Amino acid sequence: MKTTISKEELQGSIAAVRSLSPLVHNITNYVAMNNSANALLAIGASPVMAHWRDEMEEMTSIAGALVINIGTLDEQWIEGMKAAGQAASRRGTPIVIDPVGAGATSQRTATALELIALTHPTIIRGNGSEIMALVNADIKSKGVDSSASSHDALSAAESLAKSTGAVVVISGEVDYITDGTTTHTVEGGNPIMTAVTGMGCTATAIVGAFAAANKNPLVAATAAMAVMSLAGERAAAYAKGSGSMQVAFLDELYNLTPENI
Amino acid sequence: MKTTISKEELQGSIAAVRSLSPLVHNITNYVAMNNSANALLAIGASPVMAHWRDEMEEMTSIAGALVINIGTLDEQWIEGMKAAGQAASRRGTPIVIDPVGAGATSQRTATALELIALTHPTIIRGNGSEIMALVNADIKSKGVDSSASSHDALSAAESLAKSTGAVVVISGEVDYITDGTTTHTVEGGNPIMTAVTGMGCTATAIVGAFAAANKNPLVAATAAMAVMSLAGERAAAYAKGSGSMQVAFLDELYNLTPENI
Amino acid sequence: MKTTISKEELQGSIAAVRSLSPLVHNITNYVAMNNSANALLAIGASPVMAHWRDEMEEMTSIAGALVINIGTLDEQWIEGMKAAGQAASRRGTPIVIDPVGAGATSQRTATALELIALTHPTIIRGNGSEIMALVNADIKSKGVDSSASSHDALSAAESLAKSTGAVVVISGEVDYITDGTTTHTVEGGNPIMTAVTGMGCTATAIVGAFAAANKNPLVAATAAMAVMSLAGERAAAYAKGSGSMQVAFLDELYNLTPENI
Repeated sequence: MKTTISKEELQGSIAAVRSLSPLVHNITNYVAMNNSANALLAIGASPVMAHWRDEMEEMTSIAGALVINIGTLDEQWIEGMKAAGQAASRRGTPIVIDPVGAGATSQRTATALELIALTHPTIIRGNGSEIMALVNADIKSKGVDSSASSHDALSAAESLAKSTGAVVVISGEVDYITDGTTTHTVEGGNPIMTAVTGMGCTATAIVGAFAAANKNPLVAATAAMAVMSLAGERAAAYAKGSGSMQVAFLDELYNLTPENI
Repeated sequence: MKTTISKEELQGSIAAVRSLSPLVHNITNYVAMNNSANALLAIGASPVMAHWRDEMEEMTSIAGALVINIGTLDEQWIEGMKAAGQAASRRGTPIVIDPVGAGATSQRTATALELIALTHPTIIRGNGSEIMALVNADIKSKGVDSSASSHDALSAAESLAKSTGAVVVISGEVDYITDGTTTHTVEGGNPIMTAVTGMGCTATAIVGAFAAANKNPLVAATAAMAVMSLAGERAAAYAKGSGSMQVAFLDELYNLTPENI
Repeated sequence: MKTTISKEELQGSIAAVRSLSPLVHNITNYVAMNNSANALLAIGASPVMAHWRDEMEEMTSIAGALVINIGTLDEQWIEGMKAAGQAASRRGTPIVIDPVGAGATSQRTATALELIALTHPTIIRGNGSEIMALVNADIKSKGVDSSASSHDALSAAESLAKSTGAVVVISGEVDYITDGTTTHTVEGGNPIMTAVTGMGCTATAIVGAFAAANKNPLVAATAAMAVMSLAGERAAAYAKGSGSMQVAFLDELYNLTPENI
C-alpha cells in the first residue's frame, strides 16, 4: 500500500479510532449492514444501525459520525436519512454519504443529490461512475459496479468537492481523495476485493469512523482508504477465493494497529 | 455431481456467465441478500439489490435478469416486486421467482401465485413443499424448510410448468428441472448445505445469472443447479461445520471454471 | 465454561433442541438475521424470518417460539411485532424479547416496554445497559453496546423479572439468568465475541430455540447461554481475528452435541 499522507498521519488516525472507539450511526443498505458493522468493530469503532425517523434526532445526538448509504433505497428510508442528516448537520457531526448506484437510476442520482444539498456532508465516497453521475446526469452506471476508472472521475470529484465543500473519495485501482485543491492517493489493495459484496460500503463506514476520530476530513478519509487497502492486500495474500477473502479481510482489519502498518 | 445435460452445455453456460457478466436485479429477502450477492459475484455476474417501486422501471431496463424471492415479505416489497416483474415481463427479460415459504402461510402462497400470474416467469425455483403448495393449496410447509422430498413434488412441478409456461426447479437431494415435458436432474451436493441459511435463495440467484446468459431456460436452470451442487460437494469435502461451509462454498464457486468442472 | 445448572440439564436441553428441531419465528434486525438463522440451523433448530403483519397470525401458529428483537426498528416492523406477539401470547407460545439499544433512544426503551406489557414474554435478554434502561428510564446506553457490567444490572434484572413474570437474562463477562428469585450464572466465552456483530442477537435466537424445546424457561435460557459460551470459547481458541471467529463460532455450534460438552 502506498499513500500520499505521512506514516505518522496514518498511525495517528488509526490510534485515534482505537482509543476513542467512536459510535458510528449507519443508515446503510441491507446487503452491507453485517459487513459494515463487523468492519467497524474490527477497527475499534462502535457501530449502530438505525433508520427509524422518530429516533433519528436522539440517535444522532450520541453519535460521533453519521454514514448514509443509499444502496437499498425506498421512501421510508429516505425519510430516515433526511431526518438523521439534518440533525447531524445542525450539530456539526461529520456526515459521510455513499451514493450507491447513482447513475444506475435517475431516482438514485436525484436522492443522492438531494441528500447532499440538504445535509452538507463532510465526505462523499463512491466509485468512478457514481461520482461522475453526481456531476453529470448523463453518466450511466451498470448497477452498482463502476464502468469508469477512478482516474476518469478525478476532475468530476474535484468539481463536486468545490461545489459541495465535501471531501470527495473515489474508490478504484487507485483511490483519489480530494477537497478540490489538494488530492491524496492510495494505491494497493487487490482485485479480489471487487468480488466481495459491500466492500465499497464497508469503506464508507470505515471513513465514518475515521472522520469521527480526526478533525481533518482529508486526512481521515485517506487514512481510512489506506487501512482498507492494507487489510485487503494482507488478506488477499492467503485468501483462497472470495469467501475466505471476506473473512480474512475482517481478521486483518481486527489485527491492524498503528505499530504494524 | 451427475446431471442429464451434457458437459458441453454445462461448460458453455458457465463460460457465458463469466464472459457476459450479466447484471442480475434481485428483489430478495434480508437473510440471503449478502450470500446471494456474493455468490453472483463469485460466479462472475454483477448483482444489484433494489426494491423501491419508483426505480423498478429503470433498474429493470438495464438488467439481464430479474430474481424475485418472497422470503421476507410485506406490502411495500410486494409493490416493488409487482412493478419490477411487470416491467421485466414487458421487456422480455428473464424472470426467476422463488416462492419461499409458500405453504407456510396462505399469504405467501397467494403472493407467489399472484406474482406468477402477473409476471409470467421464465423459471420458478422452490423446495418440494413450496412447489406442491403452489399447485395444491392444502399442502402445508414447516416454515421455509421442505417437509416433502423433491421427488414427491415432481408431478406438481410438471403440472405447474404446463399451466404457467415456466421451467420449474425443485431443489432437494435430487434436483428436478422440468418444462412439463422434458425433465433434467442434478444429483450431488451435500446434506451440510441445508445447514447454511439462504442456500436455496442463492441457488435462485445463480439460476437468474444463468438465465440471463443462456436463452434456453431448461439448460440454464439445470446448469445453475449443477454449479451449486458441484461447488457444494467440493466445499463439503473440507468444511469443518456450517460456518466454514458457507465460506468454502463461495471459494469453490469463485474458482469454478468451464475447464475444471 | 462454568454454569450453575447441572450437566444433565444442559445435555438434556441440547438433546431436546436437536431432536425436536423447533421452528423458531424471528422478527429480528437486518444486521443479525443471517447470523441468527445460521446459528439456529447449526444448533439443530429451524429458523423462519417473517415480519409482515398480515401473516403473523398464521406464522405464529406453526412456530415453537417467537423471538422479537428491536435492533433495526420502524413503525411497520413494530406493527408486525405486536401482531405476532399478541398471537403467540394468546397461544401460550414462548416469547423471547431482545430490547436492543434500550437506553440509546427513548423510542427504543418505550417500544421494548410496550412489547413486554403487550405480549408477556417468557424471557427477556439484553446487555447490562439495556436491562437497566428497562427498569430506570434515566439509564443511557452508548448505541447498542453496554456501558454497564452484567453484575451492575443484576438487581434491575431481578426487579424486571418480578414485575413482568419473565425470566431475565443479562449477557456479559458473566451471564446472569434470573426469575427474580433463583439466579443462574454462566461464565466463560471470550472477549473477542464482542467484536463480532450480532452475537447478542444470536444468543437471543438460541434462547428462543431452547425455550421451544424445554418447558422450564430458567433452565432453557441458562442452557442456551452456556451453549453460546462454550461454542465461543472453543472458537476463540483458534480464531485469528473477528472474521474467522464468526465462522469458527458457527462451526463449533454445529459440532456441539450433548456428548461433547
